[in-house]
Amino acid sequence: MKLTMDLGARSYHIIIKRGSLKNAGALGNLHRKVMVVSDSGVPKTRVNALLKQCAEGYSFVLPRGEASKSVESWQALQSALLANGFGRDDAIAALGGGMVGDVAGFAAASYLRGIEWMQFPTTTLAQLDACIGGRVSLNLDHTKNVLGALHQPGLVVVDPDALKTLTPRQYASGLAEALKIGLVGSSEVFSLLETLEPDELDAGLERLIYLCLRYVKGVVERDEAGVGERRLLGFGHTIGQGIEAAGLARSASDALLHGECVALGMLPMLESRTLERRVKAVMRKYGLPLKQPYPAEEVLRYIGRDQRRHGNSYKVVRVKTPGRGYVEDIDSEELRLMVEG
Amino acid sequence: MKLTMDLGARSYHIIIKRGSLKNAGALGNLHRKVMVVSDSGVPKTRVNALLKQCAEGYSFVLPRGEASKSVESWQALQSALLANGFGRDDAIAALGGGMVGDVAGFAAASYLRGIEWMQFPTTTLAQLDACIGGRVSLNLDHTKNVLGALHQPGLVVVDPDALKTLTPRQYASGLAEALKIGLVGSSEVFSLLETLEPDELDAGLERLIYLCLRYVKGVVERDEAGVGERRLLGFGHTIGQGIEAAGLARSASDALLHGECVALGMLPMLESRTLERRVKAVMRKYGLPLKQPYPAEEVLRYIGRDQRRHGNSYKVVRVKTPGRGYVEDIDSEELRLMVEG
Repeated sequence: MKLTMDLGARSYHIIIKRGSLKNAGALGNLHRKVMVVSDSGVPKTRVNALLKQCAEGYSFVLPRGEASKSVESWQALQSALLANGFGRDDAIAALGGGMVGDVAGFAAASYLRGIEWMQFPTTTLAQLDACIGGRVSLNLDHTKNVLGALHQPGLVVVDPDALKTLTPRQYASGLAEALKIGLVGSSEVFSLLETLEPDELDAGLERLIYLCLRYVKGVVERDEAGVGERRLLGFGHTIGQGIEAAGLARSASDALLHGECVALGMLPMLESRTLERRVKAVMRKYGLPLKQPYPAEEVLRYIGRDQRRHGNSYKVVRVKTPGRGYVEDIDSEELRLMVEG
Repeated sequence: MKLTMDLGARSYHIIIKRGSLKNAGALGNLHRKVMVVSDSGVPKTRVNALLKQCAEGYSFVLPRGEASKSVESWQALQSALLANGFGRDDAIAALGGGMVGDVAGFAAASYLRGIEWMQFPTTTLAQLDACIGGRVSLNLDHTKNVLGALHQPGLVVVDPDALKTLTPRQYASGLAEALKIGLVGSSEVFSLLETLEPDELDAGLERLIYLCLRYVKGVVERDEAGVGERRLLGFGHTIGQGIEAAGLARSASDALLHGECVALGMLPMLESRTLERRVKAVMRKYGLPLKQPYPAEEVLRYIGRDQRRHGNSYKVVRVKTPGRGYVEDIDSEELRLMVEG
């Protein structure tokens, strides 16, 4: 299956196909210097399979985990590009999950004021949502996504076979983004998640990825800058990122994963009790947590730094009916009540 | 005098007026949080004069000098923005020379994926050339401008009175960029520099700034991305940045200033001996150096990392007749001969 992100001169193809990673050289231009950025959770054989297809491949491996989404990682990657003589026509390949895409993408956005990058997402989270749209960010001072750019990739290759090596928890975490998409914009995706049993998911995976990315693609095409409709994709993220940052600040080894936090952040934003019960049933079915573990005070401290804040007001997304999210301004008092639940 | 950079939704005004710094609040929107970024060379009274006009002004002072154009400075500035709760609608004001503009501009480009910034250039170099066009960069590993973005300011306020506190050497260094503009695109600017005596310069300064910025503005409007005509503005920079990087790597306290390096880098690119004599006469008159002080080997090492390199080929700018620069591909051997002189 193939989608095309239509953004004029910055358009690009999104290939969704089992085994496509092994065929990357036929899909994109690897006849140049290519820095393959991955993390320690990506199997070495997979990194090597991609490197082998590059005319001049280099490997840069980040430690796994959100802590690598830092200025330090980004700077080390830039130094590696410079030391290996990367020029304007060379490229970066991001092989991994959301963190790898963020660090690699922001490096590509800023090296020599912008070089091309390609996305090879290997987690459900990245494959269903984060691999397109060009938003790339770093965390700073325990706060999520403070630094970043909008830098569209030149190619996205989604190989669902890559998900086979994920832990069940990682796998489930990414489904939270599909749930998000189902709730704010695609009732078809929500139905799929509601009706499928976990053991049926693998067979329907290409279709689920396709439906999710098709929706995200449309949103990005209509509002690349994120001043309107694209805000819907931030559903669950205001409270979710507060939860995630609280975990990061504690350097907790059992910190919740990004998707888990987003799922928890969505619950208080559901406007109907019936819908809340349905969403919780989906979350339970796929093994997503239903309760956030940190004191509300801690979560609120990090929410206060949220980029969606304007003075005392937050632009949040709410949902009453699956597939129909809407943006609303709420004040910090209202938000406090939601977090305190 | 006023110019308008015409870039559609990203258009902005460029005000050139003596005393305009004292009037900044009437020219731009300072009714918000504003981080005034300066360096230790900018008089405190001037920083305070700008801060006073901001509804909620903050000051961030970098150590003076090219060494501050670093990831570390940029990160510290970002942390200050975050700690003071800067949001998407707040702004950065760059009050200083090229280095301050680069660090402040790249911070504005990447904080929350981009906030507004305003330029208040206080050096000849920045006032004549660097304050418009939106190119913002950081150095990395002793190499110039490895990291960066294209992020246009929202307003540029040029107050020639600010130049009164510069040392004669800083003042002259900036004139090298005017000389560059005269050689590649504006014979009128070149004539002015040739005919004026140094002590007459101050009286004609507003006009010189206007002519230089008017030329740069036209180039940027026609080729913002820098894939064609804008390359002309890189005249002298291939060898010049090699010289500058060699000085940086030595941490020499007497390292040449950016403009001085650019002037030295222009000389080998002049295609006519007559023109070379005329240019040297101008450089001598304004106190610019005529000989670069480092071994050719060192300079060549840093040129090898130049962003204008494509494989073994360099896109350089040459000039035979004042006001008519052109781009040419030369190979590294040819470049070596030029540097070795």
